[in-house]
Amino acid sequence: MIVLGIDPGLATTGLGLIESNERRELTVREWLTIATPTGLPLADRLEEIRFDLLRYLEEHKPDLAVVERLFFSTNVKTAFDVAQVRGVILLTLAEQGIACLEPNPLTLKSCITGDGHADKRQMQDMICRILNLKEIPKPDDAADALALAVFGALQQQGLGIGDRA
Amino acid sequence: MIVLGIDPGLATTGLGLIESNERRELTVREWLTIATPTGLPLADRLEEIRFDLLRYLEEHKPDLAVVERLFFSTNVKTAFDVAQVRGVILLTLAEQGIACLEPNPLTLKSCITGDGHADKRQMQDMICRILNLKEIPKPDDAADALALAVFGALQQQGLGIGDRA
Repeated sequence: MIVLGIDPGLATTGLGLIESNERRELTVREWLTIATPTGLPLADRLEEIRFDLLRYLEEHKPDLAVVERLFFSTNVKTAFDVAQVRGVILLTLAEQGIACLEPNPLTLKSCITGDGHADKRQMQDMICRILNLKEIPKPDDAADALALAVFGALQQQGLGIGDRA
Repeated sequence: MIVLGIDPGLATTGLGLIESNERRELTVREWLTIATPTGLPLADRLEEIRFDLLRYLEEHKPDLAVVERLFFSTNVKTAFDVAQVRGVILLTLAEQGIACLEPNPLTLKSCITGDGHADKRQMQDMICRILNLKEIPKPDDAADALALAVFGALQQQGLGIGDRA
């Protein structure tokens, strides 16, 4: 099963693609980001993100996507931008008939590390261990997207990380 | 020129369509709402809004669209929902090649009433006067959408309401 994690952002949307086999082994296929230039109008940036995502979905045909649920941010402008991108991403996944999980941050962290309040570093360390990566994926948006993909794969296996130990 | 005002919302998106002729007269074509049921998943609701909007754009071929800029709301959940819908709407307009104005609330109110801090009632009264309507359009989402359409038409004429008096 192919799982795509997506971390929405207007400047940078992170994508993380992993594979889960019958022996429940998780392997990274790739990670990357979709970037849009700051100078462009919002609508054009949304259109570019959708275009790139559509092409990516057609090429890699994920069985499942995972997009984090929105939570309150102190930076309202950024939060609105993320929400507008997120709307376009959910729409695109739905139109392509790709199932999508939407964990909240607590559920995500809890599943990956066993601790719902894990910090970024703990999350990245666990992602490296689970996926046998020697280095933390860069940029953070891509690492976050991989964490979402791992969450999706573990959910499909009926497992949180506690159960794998 | 045909101008479409759009007031995004997950439960109810308001649409207001007006026409501006060479004599700078504004007339209402219609107003309506796109509603989506609460029980549906977010992605399906976004897909439904996009589907209905696309059909509407194809039928009425507006020359210009107007979507209000987002502002901070005390209800963050609702604001995120609106932002996600707004992203889908801006995307759809851009894909259809329809120019879109995005006034902030202050600019909108100032253009329609001459007062950037006008309340809902003042706005609705002015919309009725400008469009020769005997009654305030219902629901509020549709009235708000008509206000946005009037803003777009006045901008295209190079006028705010102060200049029309």
